[in-house]
Amino acid sequence: MGIVVQKYGGSSVADATSIKRVAQRIVETKKAGNDVVVVVSAMGDTTDELIDLANQVSPLPPGRELDMLLTAGERISMALLAMAIGNLGQEARSFTGSQAGVITDSIHGKAKIIDVTPGRLQSAIDDGAIVIVAGFQGVSQTTKDITTLGRGGSDTTAVALAAALNADVCEIYTDVDGIFTADPRIVPKAQRIPALSYEETLEMAANGAKILHLRCVEYARRNSMPIHVRSSFSNKTGTWVVAAEDVHKYSEEGQPMEQAIISGVAHDRSEAKITIVGVPDKVGNAAAILRALGDALINVDMIVQNVSAAATGRTDISFTLPGSDGQTAMTALARLKDSVGFEQLLYNDAVGKVSIVGAGMRSAPGITATFFEALANVGINIDMISTSEIRISVVVAEDQVDAAVNAAHDAFELGSDEVEAVVYGGTGR
Amino acid sequence: MGIVVQKYGGSSVADATSIKRVAQRIVETKKAGNDVVVVVSAMGDTTDELIDLANQVSPLPPGRELDMLLTAGERISMALLAMAIGNLGQEARSFTGSQAGVITDSIHGKAKIIDVTPGRLQSAIDDGAIVIVAGFQGVSQTTKDITTLGRGGSDTTAVALAAALNADVCEIYTDVDGIFTADPRIVPKAQRIPALSYEETLEMAANGAKILHLRCVEYARRNSMPIHVRSSFSNKTGTWVVAAEDVHKYSEEGQPMEQAIISGVAHDRSEAKITIVGVPDKVGNAAAILRALGDALINVDMIVQNVSAAATGRTDISFTLPGSDGQTAMTALARLKDSVGFEQLLYNDAVGKVSIVGAGMRSAPGITATFFEALANVGINIDMISTSEIRISVVVAEDQVDAAVNAAHDAFELGSDEVEAVVYGGTGR
Repeated sequence: MGIVVQKYGGSSVADATSIKRVAQRIVETKKAGNDVVVVVSAMGDTTDELIDLANQVSPLPPGRELDMLLTAGERISMALLAMAIGNLGQEARSFTGSQAGVITDSIHGKAKIIDVTPGRLQSAIDDGAIVIVAGFQGVSQTTKDITTLGRGGSDTTAVALAAALNADVCEIYTDVDGIFTADPRIVPKAQRIPALSYEETLEMAANGAKILHLRCVEYARRNSMPIHVRSSFSNKTGTWVVAAEDVHKYSEEGQPMEQAIISGVAHDRSEAKITIVGVPDKVGNAAAILRALGDALINVDMIVQNVSAAATGRTDISFTLPGSDGQTAMTALARLKDSVGFEQLLYNDAVGKVSIVGAGMRSAPGITATFFEALANVGINIDMISTSEIRISVVVAEDQVDAAVNAAHDAFELGSDEVEAVVYGGTGR
Repeated sequence: MGIVVQKYGGSSVADATSIKRVAQRIVETKKAGNDVVVVVSAMGDTTDELIDLANQVSPLPPGRELDMLLTAGERISMALLAMAIGNLGQEARSFTGSQAGVITDSIHGKAKIIDVTPGRLQSAIDDGAIVIVAGFQGVSQTTKDITTLGRGGSDTTAVALAAALNADVCEIYTDVDGIFTADPRIVPKAQRIPALSYEETLEMAANGAKILHLRCVEYARRNSMPIHVRSSFSNKTGTWVVAAEDVHKYSEEGQPMEQAIISGVAHDRSEAKITIVGVPDKVGNAAAILRALGDALINVDMIVQNVSAAATGRTDISFTLPGSDGQTAMTALARLKDSVGFEQLLYNDAVGKVSIVGAGMRSAPGITATFFEALANVGINIDMISTSEIRISVVVAEDQVDAAVNAAHDAFELGSDEVEAVVYGGTGR
């Protein structure tokens, strides 16, 4: 009998009615002959409400205590879900991240899973029980304090448990039918993608596609764990995220799937851009800047350095980063002003990033030209550019993001003839 | 440097403002040179709201999952309190019952503490941190599942930690100034009692005085831990609960305290009465009945058996029990109908119990007569009677409880000349 891991986000368990609906689906999976392990997020807006409470008592809550507070959210949803399943005649047992053996490092608020010891879960499975696990949380290996994995952490919990329990599949339930060629709220003709490689999904996730968390996909790739992204509101097949060599197996309507040149268009409005003006062109300055950002635990995304002006011996360095890290980064950089000797710091959060992603672009020339022409045709100015083997990203003005996504989607003919996507609700974590 | 354990109930941490106020008091205690360990209940109505959620998904939630759910309540309040203290410049660390080493048996919903291993707390104290512990909860020694101690459990947590940490005092904060000679909402002239023995407090608590939980007082007595019951809204001295031989030390205004004959009047409206009619007067029948109730984990309080009627060889057995256990008890008894052969079960929850408590009654004759005369004078009929060495209790009709409490309070001249008591808010758990 195979193990299926299912993850339900906050919108899938937002209230008692939703919890009962999800319980029904879980029981059906169990009755179909599977052992079921469920990972669940906090109900609806619980996390935001708890953060709001924290801010009422302290402007800067300590990470340890904030993690202690936020983990109450999954504790509530998982216990309620176990009760609802019990009420359908199946035994369910809930476990906190710590009880489930989710061992992490000690970085509160964005801890990394370093080991999973699912002994108690396996015992419960062996007893025939449905297992419910709190997503998003773990316990520090060194301090034994409770940690959280950061936004999207529940997806990572699900894949980590699936790998540790040697599950057949990790199903990530959400409020749309899978991963789309673009955000259907921006591009109404966006199509569901039947299958994506881990690498393409990583690029999509890293560049703003909200459907899967980056670390979750990395974890799945490292462990070759198939992910099935699907809707908790329907029984349709969603999007399979699998190894590149397996993508062709997930064709639909009997057609062998051809490798798409471009699989999808991702966008991200959450980034900000910092420009460090007038950096003396001296060995070690760029390194000092990136070291300061690294020490502040800031993930720099795109980074561009202008050619040094011969007359002044100075250059400008621009980079993008998550907007939520903006203030921390500006503070860290301001401390370097004297030692590095730059002239000025500029901050701009009215930027957006648009990316095209596709494994087929490796063997197709002219992709960049097509993309940039499409943007030029609708009058969009490109601010920064970065590329990987299977992705091209541009930074544009925030108010031009929608137009850029549509232009790219059209240029690569990703749309279907009819509107397919249905967005059912909010988004979980 | 001595350790002070402080316990704050739900009404003391009902919202952000209250939490900040309590944080201030805790920091003052720390600054006065004490190591401080704080036990905290869930915020205000949190527990009731969680129970309501549980009932929305399941009519009969499993105990294991209900405990998992309810323990989210203290998790929230303790993390917020730690943050609020941090914001006042002191380090505070919160710990769940499990992390604090509160080891219990496995009876979900009313677990008993069987051991306390406060190693992590002691380390935090040694680091100079203020320690915040979730009240009401622990972890099962055998199953490692999370347990709750039942209503009032936070008081027990506080005394258990105080004993394990060898604290100087366990302060129980509430919304009144201490333990009163009667409930001030019923008897406006009721007075605060400066000091009570453990035994008297046990009798008061067991008979409806809401201010301290029975198991908490038992625990304190076994460990000779002084309890100071006081208001979180003022800095006044409250009521000290200490060994009988120490009560005289807590006199006020320089007067040595005389042993009061009657210390206070307690009342309890939460009980119900079950009468088993027509029980064959046969050896083993009463035992079978009590065994069935014991197996259902029901604490029988008063129990009365009529003299057997010679003509029928049958008798009636009446007993009181917590009204919340009424249905369970009726179900358990109904199963015995054939084996025991009784005629009928009667259930009455419109009863109340009024008790006078005082260590001095051991050496003062005529107390019972004074009590019963006072009730008779205001036309109150006594339904059941039970006595201990330092207590006399009667069961009366529920709507006569207030009159009975006032009559007893007057008869033993317990009142002050002016209204002293202030009730500040609701009640915690």
